[in-house]
This record gives sequence, structure tokens and C-alpha cells, in this order.
Amino acid sequence: MRKKLIVQKYGGTSVGNVERIEAVAQRIISYAKRGDKVVVVVSAMGDTTDELIELSRKINPRPEEREMDMLISTGEQISSALLAMAIHKKGFEAISFTGPQVGIITDTYHTKAKILKIETRRIKHELEDGKIVIIAGFQGISTKSEITTLGRGGSDLSAVALAVSLHADRCEIYTDVDGIYTADPRIITNAKKLKYITFDEILELAARGAQVMHTRAVEVGKKFNMPIYVRSSFSQKEGTIIMDKTPLIEQSMVRGVALTENEAKVTVCDVPDKPGIAAQIFTKLASQNINIDMIVQNVSHKKMTDISFTVPKDSLAKAIKISNRIATSIGAGSIVSDESVAKVSVVGVGMKSQSGVAARCFSALAKNKINIEMISTSEISISCVVAKSTGKEALKVLHKEFGLDKMKE
Amino acid sequence: MRKKLIVQKYGGTSVGNVERIEAVAQRIISYAKRGDKVVVVVSAMGDTTDELIELSRKINPRPEEREMDMLISTGEQISSALLAMAIHKKGFEAISFTGPQVGIITDTYHTKAKILKIETRRIKHELEDGKIVIIAGFQGISTKSEITTLGRGGSDLSAVALAVSLHADRCEIYTDVDGIYTADPRIITNAKKLKYITFDEILELAARGAQVMHTRAVEVGKKFNMPIYVRSSFSQKEGTIIMDKTPLIEQSMVRGVALTENEAKVTVCDVPDKPGIAAQIFTKLASQNINIDMIVQNVSHKKMTDISFTVPKDSLAKAIKISNRIATSIGAGSIVSDESVAKVSVVGVGMKSQSGVAARCFSALAKNKINIEMISTSEISISCVVAKSTGKEALKVLHKEFGLDKMKE
Repeated sequence: MRKKLIVQKYGGTSVGNVERIEAVAQRIISYAKRGDKVVVVVSAMGDTTDELIELSRKINPRPEEREMDMLISTGEQISSALLAMAIHKKGFEAISFTGPQVGIITDTYHTKAKILKIETRRIKHELEDGKIVIIAGFQGISTKSEITTLGRGGSDLSAVALAVSLHADRCEIYTDVDGIYTADPRIITNAKKLKYITFDEILELAARGAQVMHTRAVEVGKKFNMPIYVRSSFSQKEGTIIMDKTPLIEQSMVRGVALTENEAKVTVCDVPDKPGIAAQIFTKLASQNINIDMIVQNVSHKKMTDISFTVPKDSLAKAIKISNRIATSIGAGSIVSDESVAKVSVVGVGMKSQSGVAARCFSALAKNKINIEMISTSEISISCVVAKSTGKEALKVLHKEFGLDKMKE
Repeated sequence: MRKKLIVQKYGGTSVGNVERIEAVAQRIISYAKRGDKVVVVVSAMGDTTDELIELSRKINPRPEEREMDMLISTGEQISSALLAMAIHKKGFEAISFTGPQVGIITDTYHTKAKILKIETRRIKHELEDGKIVIIAGFQGISTKSEITTLGRGGSDLSAVALAVSLHADRCEIYTDVDGIYTADPRIITNAKKLKYITFDEILELAARGAQVMHTRAVEVGKKFNMPIYVRSSFSQKEGTIIMDKTPLIEQSMVRGVALTENEAKVTVCDVPDKPGIAAQIFTKLASQNINIDMIVQNVSHKKMTDISFTVPKDSLAKAIKISNRIATSIGAGSIVSDESVAKVSVVGVGMKSQSGVAARCFSALAKNKINIEMISTSEISISCVVAKSTGKEALKVLHKEFGLDKMKE
């Protein structure tokens, strides 16, 4: 068997205490033992980052972002050093690095920096030297020599970017769930774990509200075609491989369903039905950083139409305020909003080539007396807004309709 | 008044919690307000360093020193960032740096590195820009680009070295005591705080067991003649200035007294009185890293002599073992040890030019029926080993004998 170069990332719960750090060390060593070269990316232990943020808020409710990065980047430095010590204890060679130290170069946007480049010289040198290389995730050094952090989910991003830069054979993300499921197993108890999923599908699922992996890391994986293997650090179970194309045998049409209750619906009533009006409304909302998801314009009978859209609930007040102003200026009617909505989505790259998925969605929901308020489709997904009280039921109906509960892993 | 450049160092208890960090920020701002440029060095909050060490021991009782430095250097990074945030909150400009980031260059001896050089470009740039510059103490970057720490008391060293490199007007060490006293105030209740003390005197007092400042920082201050101002961060009281020569008005002969109960006495009995025998004994002990303090050889009447010396108590067992081996090889007699001893010392540069200090010591102790077991003198100090039961009394007697209890500050 050819020796591999593997990048592994362990999340905060995976290194949450002394025993878990020791278990992670043991797992890493099992790879090193069979001759693989291993680069490990670690998050901060458990709630360390949140605790540091809380401490800073006590001192300054609005801390400067540069200082925030100085502060919170320590969490990963601590877990990296401890993991190196745990590996040493078991008689293997390891060396830890901070992101800045090893040369993870980012832009200058503190607390949400983007990785520009990764220096691999030092890492390669240590790997050649037979060492397991441990790198503090979530952090880097800006082009202005400042410590930066990459935002939430940043350690996943560090791992995938490192795997790409090092031309690793694969990138493994160890977390507290054992893979990616056809639906949230807390809602759909017979949800099945997927063996494979494509980059596009997981990005679509995440965009539709599934709490899977952070999208930035998946986007980098997709861009450079780096397979990402998601699995649990608490078991030896097989996880899910996120890749460009899944093996043929798995080509079921729909690969997963997602539910979100975090959006609200806004309707601008009696909008004059003239070209350019919709553009005016959404340009204005976008310029105020309001993230619009679905947009539906009703077929117009008269000279008037209703335009509905969904926004994250925490932007609702702002969206209503802006919509009211726009309505006045364009001569539209009142603004109606509804927070009691849920959005269900089905996602699958197979939908591209197969017709009838939308129709099956609608009739399955109808058969179960679930009323659809809004519909939106993309190349690989269909989303429906329904009353919040019917959201979970809608998810179950769709999960069953497309045979996800009977899917063989 | 000319604007000054001041380097201030705040210890762990001074930044031990949110309230204390805010108080320190306020103090720093009071200097900035009057136009002084301020560079601040901070230790880790409270017991952070000890807690990190304890955590590491759970994972690996003998952690690699390089990884230890990665781990414990985070403590100062955290307090630096928080202090910067506290200053921002109060409307002043500040920026924090890690030791490596700002260019505190050290040798490669992890956990006890020596500072080789300090890059001052970035610090000067930020000061010119009107910012208070906060630097994580206790740490630097080695000539091999590794994170290093400077050992216990390292933050004091960072501060003094920074003051020297920046040609600061002075270096202020803020701590939890309000200066340097003529004796340990816990033993001598009427001990007086000194307004001034020389580098030599404080080094001698520290060597004689006084728990004052770490000697490495004082040594750097002495070498570059950088005055060090020791004071409390909890009060506005005047502290003590450590400097090259104290103002004339203060030239009392003895400046302080010290007591240590941490040493034990070892006697090699019946040593053949031949040249080179003492050298043989102490070369052997030194080669085993045993720190010998006082050495006394009795006047020899016969062809035999007794040689006594003191060692730190924690080296006693080892010293006895080695001494036994030496005694056999040189044909000496038995080894006798005594742990119930104390050492009292009087220190003062004025002793150089004034005779009779030793005589006054001995007669004052004799008058109080305190028996002297060993005597050793240096240019600026006299130390006597006495029975442990009489140590504190001896300290009081000497403190009074030289008028330290009546000294005017």
C-alpha cells in the first residue's frame, strides 16, 4: 500500500479534555504507525473560545477585532501544544505550530480573514523528519504581520486549505457526529448516513438550513477537488466522503432533505407592476446587508402585484423598516410579515437530469394536507415555505417520498 | 516638563481579574494623559501559567520544553489583548503584541531562554503613532524562529530589556508589594521601605535569601544602568528605585537584612590538611550541580581539619552521598549534617569603606546570646549561620543594631 499524506482536523469537543486529547493522540498514532504522514489541525478545547470571548466582553463590549484575534487565537495554540505532548508521551515524534508561525498567510480582515497562501516548507521539512505535524486551526498571519482568525468553522477551512497546499491524499474532518445524514437525525429518526455526497449537494444542504459542515471549507474543497472525509473522533465508524462526483451506485435522485425555521416571510403588497420595480426593492435591501433567500412574485392580474421574500429572522425588523420606506417611494401598499414559517428543501445532483422531482414534492405534501406558501428551485434543489407548525411533518413526508429512509449505505 | 518614555511591567496579581485589568488600564492612561509615551509589559493573569503547567502534567509528566513554551506563552498573550481592550474602552489608543511578533529575539534554550536582541522598529512606530504599546512579557522568539519563554520572573526581564533597548527614561515594575524593605516585613514589623537601593545591594540581598526581585532583571538593569522603580499597582504609594548609586543623604552603612532557612550545613570531619584537598571536594560537588553557598575551613592544629559548607536543603541528600564518596577516597572521617540552621545577612554598599561592621554584628549577636556557627563575608555583605531556633531573633537584633528600624525614608 502506498504511503499517504493525510490532513486530519479535530474539533473542540474531540479535544475537550485530557482523556479526549489522549484518545485523539492514539488515533493519530495509528495512522503514523502504518507509515502515513499526518498533519493535524486542532480547534480550541471545548468552550475555550466562547469563554475567552465572554471574558473580553466583560472588559469591552465592543472589542477591537485585531485584539480579539490576539485573544482567541490562544485557544488553538494551547490545544496544539497539549496534543503534541500527548503524542510524545506515547513515544512518537510530533511538533506543534501556530498558524502564523507555520505561514498560513491571510488577508487583513480580522476575525473573518481569508487564507491567501500557505507556506509548506517548514511542514514538509518536519514530515520528512518523521514527525507528526500539529497546527493550530482557525488562525493565520496577515500580509501586515498581524495575527488573524478565520471566523467560525475556521479550523475546517485551515484543514482543507492545508490539504490542498500540501497536495494531501485526503482531508479528514473529525467531529462529534459520525457523518452526514439524509436528514437531521434528531428530527428524522430513521435518517440514513450517506457514504458519499458531492460538494454541490452539501453546499446546497447547508444553504437550505442543514447544520452540516461550514460552507467555506467545502467551497475550497470543491475548488481544488480535495475530497473531505467527515467522521466521528469518538468511534471507528465509517463517515461520509464529500467529493466531486459520487460513485455511480449511489445515484439516487434526492440525497438529503433539510429544514430551517430561522427565516421569516415578508410581503410587499400592491406593488405597481412595472419593469424595474423588483430590482429597486432588492438592490435597496442588499445594500443594507440583508440576506434575501427566496423571492416570489405573484402572477399579476391587475396593474398591481404582491412580492414576497424570506429573510433571516434576526434581519426581519430591519427588512420591514426598509421595505416600508421603499413601498412609500414606489407607491406600493402595506408590508405584511410572517415569522411562523418553515422552509423544507430536497437536494440532489441527480435532479438535474431527472424531471418530476418538483411535482413529486408538491403532490406528496398535498397528499399530507401540507399547504405550500412559496416555492423556489435551483438546479439541484427544491425548497418550499410552509407554515411552521407543519415544517417537521413536511420534512418527514419528503424524506420518505424519495426513499431516503430505505437507502442502503 | 520633558515628555518621558516609560516602560511599565504589571505582574500576574496586578492583572488577576477584570476589575484589576481595568484599574491597571486607568493607571497607564494617567501617564499617557500627561504626554508620556508608555510601553507596558504584562504577565499572565493570576495563576494562569501554573494552571497551564498543571494541565500539561496531566497529559505528560515530562513535556518537551519546546511544547511547554508553546503552551505557557499563551497566558501573557491573553492578558495583553485584554489590557488593550480595557484601554480602548476608556477611549485611548493601544495595541498589543506577542514577544515573538514584536521581535524579542532569544537564544534557543526553551523555558529559560536569554534575550539576545530586541527589535524596536515596530514599537517605536506605534509610539510615534500615539499608541500605548502592550507587550506580552516572559516570551520571545528564538534564532530558530521558535516561541521561547524566559523562565520565572521573565516578565521583569522583558521589561528591563525593553527599557534598555528603547533608551527609556525609566522602567517601572508594578507588583503586589509597595517597594523594597530593610527586612521582610512579615518578620520585622518595623522594617522600613527604602526609597533607593543600589543594584549591588539588591542582588546581594536576593542572594542572601531576601525574596525581592528576580536577579536576572536586576543584572540587566545594572549592566546597562537602567533605573528600576519597584512599586505597588494597588496603591499610589511611592516605591523603591533600584539604581547605580543612591543619593548621598541615604548613605547608611547597612541597607537591609535577610534571613533564609532553606539551607543545611554539611561538615566533612578529619580531612587531611594538605593543599588541593578542598579543591577536590568542591570541584566534585560543583560537577554534580550542587550549589554551595558558604564554605568554612577550621584552623588546623593537628594534621587534620574540618571543612563545613552550606547547600540548599533540597540538595542535601545528594551532597551527603557525594561527600561520603569523597571522604573515603581522600581518607577523611565522617560526614555530619545539620538542617536546623538559618542564615542571617546584613547588606550595604557603605560597608566597603567603613570598618567595624563585622565586629558590630558579632557582638550584637553575642550580647543576645546567639551563637554563630559559620561566618562568611563579601565586599558588601556579612552572613552568619546560626541555629534555626535563633534565626528570626538574630534578624531582629541586626535590624536594630544598624538603625534600620529608625531609618527615615
